[in-house]
Amino acid sequence: MKSPICDMLGIEFPLLAFSHCRDVVAAVSRAGGFGVLGATVHTPDTLERELKWIDDHVDGKPYGIDVLIPENISTSGEKDVTWKSLEARVPLEHRAYTRDLLKKYDIELTTTEVDDNQPQPFDAGTALELLKVSFNHPIRLIANALGVPPKAMIEMGRKHNVPVAALVGAKEHALRQVAAGVDILVVQGTEAGGHCGEVSTMVLVPEVIKAIKPIRDVPVLAAGGIMTGRQMAACMAMGAAGAWTGSVWLATVESETSEIFREKMIAASSRDAIRSKGRTGKPARQLRSVWTDAWDRAPESPGALPMPLQSIISRDAFNSIDRAAAAGNAKARDLVSYFVGQGVGLIDSVKSAGALVQEFKEEFAEAVEHINALVAESGAKQ
Amino acid sequence: MKSPICDMLGIEFPLLAFSHCRDVVAAVSRAGGFGVLGATVHTPDTLERELKWIDDHVDGKPYGIDVLIPENISTSGEKDVTWKSLEARVPLEHRAYTRDLLKKYDIELTTTEVDDNQPQPFDAGTALELLKVSFNHPIRLIANALGVPPKAMIEMGRKHNVPVAALVGAKEHALRQVAAGVDILVVQGTEAGGHCGEVSTMVLVPEVIKAIKPIRDVPVLAAGGIMTGRQMAACMAMGAAGAWTGSVWLATVESETSEIFREKMIAASSRDAIRSKGRTGKPARQLRSVWTDAWDRAPESPGALPMPLQSIISRDAFNSIDRAAAAGNAKARDLVSYFVGQGVGLIDSVKSAGALVQEFKEEFAEAVEHINALVAESGAKQ
Repeated sequence: MKSPICDMLGIEFPLLAFSHCRDVVAAVSRAGGFGVLGATVHTPDTLERELKWIDDHVDGKPYGIDVLIPENISTSGEKDVTWKSLEARVPLEHRAYTRDLLKKYDIELTTTEVDDNQPQPFDAGTALELLKVSFNHPIRLIANALGVPPKAMIEMGRKHNVPVAALVGAKEHALRQVAAGVDILVVQGTEAGGHCGEVSTMVLVPEVIKAIKPIRDVPVLAAGGIMTGRQMAACMAMGAAGAWTGSVWLATVESETSEIFREKMIAASSRDAIRSKGRTGKPARQLRSVWTDAWDRAPESPGALPMPLQSIISRDAFNSIDRAAAAGNAKARDLVSYFVGQGVGLIDSVKSAGALVQEFKEEFAEAVEHINALVAESGAKQ
Repeated sequence: MKSPICDMLGIEFPLLAFSHCRDVVAAVSRAGGFGVLGATVHTPDTLERELKWIDDHVDGKPYGIDVLIPENISTSGEKDVTWKSLEARVPLEHRAYTRDLLKKYDIELTTTEVDDNQPQPFDAGTALELLKVSFNHPIRLIANALGVPPKAMIEMGRKHNVPVAALVGAKEHALRQVAAGVDILVVQGTEAGGHCGEVSTMVLVPEVIKAIKPIRDVPVLAAGGIMTGRQMAACMAMGAAGAWTGSVWLATVESETSEIFREKMIAASSRDAIRSKGRTGKPARQLRSVWTDAWDRAPESPGALPMPLQSIISRDAFNSIDRAAAAGNAKARDLVSYFVGQGVGLIDSVKSAGALVQEFKEEFAEAVEHINALVAESGAKQ
């Protein structure tokens, strides 16, 4: 395809797939798309291992990595914040609320031990370390979410001749990213899973393209709700250079998601994917469950803590919830949740990542044929 | 164009334009689209006058009308509810809150006299009377919002051989409408102006198409955020049979909107169009202003009343606000608001409705050319 993204990333079909699972990343790239590994959960050591595995399984095809460096976080300005030190900052009220909630569902809240020097979640310094590790591998893209990337990240990209992509959820953010010098904008509508804004993909994609055009012609990847090749074609008809996808890969055989969450995804409609602060402290779209209701709707909710404190709470809680649900605690299922977009309403089966890339290509071609058939006798073309 | 909607409605380009302004309706239909007059604000007498005017100005081209019959309204089950009787039900607290709010902006809240027997806003009986009047004119579509239409409406459509369209904001609602026998679904994403749900156009259109397909092949008009022919092409690439638009016509020279609101639309970004109960008591997207903040965000807000009571409050309030703003009260501008979708972020000028239809056609053709150029050398088509 002749999209500028294909040239930049060395691919034939501009379908980017964000996943925390190396198997998905490699399978998508092998099938002609472009896998992007979510690296935030890693240490430099574990990331090194994952990238090595990808290199061994990607048949020389290009792939990228994604980090998450929040511009606004409650620990801004503090140095070397450790996970342990944050644990001490979680109010007792929030701990008790979490423990009591899980208890009602017969789940014991257990705490995972962390090293004394383990950095806070979403730590910017760690993210830059992860990027350094990744440049020892043939990565073709580095992407960042939750704000303008630090200068060091953009400079790293320049130095290694690797494009830097930034996720944005509003026109105003896109303009700041273009000024900061990013190479690709991932324009993500509110329907997306994970951290998201309030403007829809259908509006935000043309709004951003129009706003940045007079400044610099940065290619736009459309994101948010895209689960099919037809939607991808729709976004490209509006001027996007390709699609950035996430949730759709959660329902692949290769993905990291639990069997229970897969079942919940297949049962869910779009309205079950809600925007909540209950998981990370910033609005992020996720499957509605007793957990999100407890933070968003319950009158007795103490309110979610700011990022990164809410993640300290939710990590232990979801480890406990997922373990209990997997062990057969039927009540625990009601709490199970994970980041997923409104497109969950389109998921009705689990398939392999490679087959899904192929399906995207076929649906894309169908959409083009369909629109051509519509206008074949039209006044619109004359 | 070969869309089923074109055959059903007798048009060449499946662009439907909802407007309260007869000039917009006639201009769109004359230009090859399909104007739909919002009739809810009318009495049978004033509607008769409007439709006569349209007949005289539409050059024999087809058009339709739209009513609003809420399935859920706080006066459900009561007979012959008058506007006057509702005025007595508005709590004093809400009246005082409104009066004090306007006073802070140097606006005197004046009350518009109503006839003793004037029906409540959104009265179902009145809506059916309006439909009866409209069948004395060559209307080609009747549309309804806010729930499954009453049986009488569907029967009227059958009898007069006029298709019945229903607006839906969720898959579950679409399935109920198909079971009730509607002929066309207007699938409206959360980005739309006016009453809307929470699922985006990008997700809801394919989700509904997929859900109804095994039941009955009802043509789907995509709605929500569509301001350009490129977006229309995008929706049709996803399988929509055409587009239903509203907000984009507010910025035409023919529309009923005030000069001040036009200026505010041009200045607004998509994030300024928010979902609020402040105008009608049900969530409806509108331009954020001091008014919406006062109902949604102010700690001292008494909370919006249920439909139709909030409309009793907001009608008098906005009459007073708009009059004060037009008379040069600069502070009153901060309160000015109206229903508008997130697509407001794409509005940057005021043009004629006829020119806008032409622009849609050109942009549609451009989108088709663009997508064909993309795949000209693609593996996707092989």
